[in-house]
Amino acid sequence: MSEALSNAALAVRLQARFHRDIPLSRQMGVTVGAYDGKALELRAPLAPNRNDKLTGFAGSLNALMTLAGWGLLYLRLAQAGERCDIVIHKGEQVFSAPVRRDFRAIAVLDESLWPGFMERLGDRGRARIELDARIEAGGATAATLKARYVALRRE
Amino acid sequence: MSEALSNAALAVRLQARFHRDIPLSRQMGVTVGAYDGKALELRAPLAPNRNDKLTGFAGSLNALMTLAGWGLLYLRLAQAGERCDIVIHKGEQVFSAPVRRDFRAIAVLDESLWPGFMERLGDRGRARIELDARIEAGGATAATLKARYVALRRE
Repeated sequence: MSEALSNAALAVRLQARFHRDIPLSRQMGVTVGAYDGKALELRAPLAPNRNDKLTGFAGSLNALMTLAGWGLLYLRLAQAGERCDIVIHKGEQVFSAPVRRDFRAIAVLDESLWPGFMERLGDRGRARIELDARIEAGGATAATLKARYVALRRE
Repeated sequence: MSEALSNAALAVRLQARFHRDIPLSRQMGVTVGAYDGKALELRAPLAPNRNDKLTGFAGSLNALMTLAGWGLLYLRLAQAGERCDIVIHKGEQVFSAPVRRDFRAIAVLDESLWPGFMERLGDRGRARIELDARIEAGGATAATLKARYVALRRE
């Protein structure tokens, strides 16, 4: 129960942080949906994120997936008591279907990578990890992102 | 001379189209810089596109590169008298340096791909092409995108 509350409180803090530190996330209407400690879901409305075809703009879809991966790593590191700068180093996305309604980005961590990542972070103050995210709209997957993030421990 | 005027007029039209059809491009402050028929440069100010580290948000950098590639293909097709829907199918980006000032995205076409692309478009009403874009800030390259776009001739 206390863990569930803690996850919910962290999600609220993450949304405030996005809106304060990344102005474009406000313009996109990004809100933090579910966080269960393993996956993070962000949401965005279609209207401010549409393109010329009245479907989701690829730049918005990519941005929401990028934020979802960043946010998941931010929350996991916060829960591990780590204060880090987190940057995305590279990413690869595929757009498989048009988005015709409000959409969600879900980032998921492969838990098998976590112990090695934390060990490298402890040893060197810096470590990288691969995170996957996807866009869902109306129950279907519309895009995927495979991204590499780097965490740098703050002095 | 008339070609230079035509390129400039097309650049003005492209900016109006971005701002009308992709609301996020307005929020990002996207403007169309140079277009010479072979490369397209878009510009964006840092302030609305910053992140928590006061550098360029990766989502904004990706969006500007995506728009640059899209815009270059849009202009080239318009100049060839083609009316097409253009979608990005996939992309791969690398962020190599933080962006600490206003930035530009430059998309470039490998001219050797153009004849085959136009031939496939003519034959099948649909064709794909790879375009490269990069982010420059203060004279240095900060990010690159390799993307595949698909053009579909309108009925």
